[in-house]
Amino acid sequence: MNAAAARVYAALVHYPVYNREGDIVATSVTPLDVHDLGRLALTYGVKGYYITNPYEPQQRLVAEIIHHWRAGLGGDHSPHRKLALSRARGAADVTEVFDDVAARESEEPWVVATTARAWPGAAAIPEAIAGAGSKPVLLLFGTGYGLTDDLLAAADAVLRPIAGDAAFNHLPVRAAMAIYFDRIFGGAAAAT
Amino acid sequence: MNAAAARVYAALVHYPVYNREGDIVATSVTPLDVHDLGRLALTYGVKGYYITNPYEPQQRLVAEIIHHWRAGLGGDHSPHRKLALSRARGAADVTEVFDDVAARESEEPWVVATTARAWPGAAAIPEAIAGAGSKPVLLLFGTGYGLTDDLLAAADAVLRPIAGDAAFNHLPVRAAMAIYFDRIFGGAAAAT
Repeated sequence: MNAAAARVYAALVHYPVYNREGDIVATSVTPLDVHDLGRLALTYGVKGYYITNPYEPQQRLVAEIIHHWRAGLGGDHSPHRKLALSRARGAADVTEVFDDVAARESEEPWVVATTARAWPGAAAIPEAIAGAGSKPVLLLFGTGYGLTDDLLAAADAVLRPIAGDAAFNHLPVRAAMAIYFDRIFGGAAAAT
Repeated sequence: MNAAAARVYAALVHYPVYNREGDIVATSVTPLDVHDLGRLALTYGVKGYYITNPYEPQQRLVAEIIHHWRAGLGGDHSPHRKLALSRARGAADVTEVFDDVAARESEEPWVVATTARAWPGAAAIPEAIAGAGSKPVLLLFGTGYGLTDDLLAAADAVLRPIAGDAAFNHLPVRAAMAIYFDRIFGGAAAAT
């Protein structure tokens, strides 16, 4: 699939996610993720990406990072970081992201959630994405110990977990985003 | 290919690499990379990975990170971080890594370098890896603006760059490692 043509968006979700104990929490923003997701979005043609956090000081942090590199001194120092952040937006929660994508695309997005856990009804990539038809697509990635069951249940589709060779199941969300983007959009290049 | 069976190692190289101006420099260690590469190694069955840096204070930093999580308080707090770092080693340079892998495997490794630049003779993954035959494999990843021409020329094989949809060519090395590991070792899962 051609991501740019298909109007794909992504959100890095900091709430509601699980912590190690299975409680529902809000995690803190990792500033480096804002950059990494931006570079991935540019590489794979993802039209826009959102950093969601319900806490105002965390939203301010995200806004400051974006401003520093996009409009402030950072962008003068590093033009490719400026470019990488050109598609970034902050948001309070997934609902705000959903509404923003719907407004930008004049059509509500098809929401595809990701998880590292087994999930009944989780689909392979082609089926999960094809369900969108001609709609825009919004991919959700959870920080901490992953998106909550309620969020997965509310999504239009859930992707199967990334299964490696080993029993270890703790990929950084940065790595999971890279791998999913490559599997979804890098198909033509995957043989190289 | 089954990475564990194939005796695969990886090195994150901080020297010699290019900076933005094309000078050959040593970059600083990003502590988070030590964790991310560890989690990727566990997920994809990579037997060992090395963080190379020529400067003694940087080597000490790497040793402290590994010690904190593997033998110190960090490991008690987070058992999966302890596990993720169980395959990490510090090294001064690629030669030291090469010798260490050769000693561990009683056989010199086949060195496969990666680059984001066009490189004459760069190969597709199956060909580049197949060249190893039954030898252990050592994958090299460059920080900064990538491994130097001399290092690429000295490698047994060079992998083709990751080509995304767009002209933007600045993936974080963390993301490049995730994508290459998935393309090399995640083949069976790539259809999911």
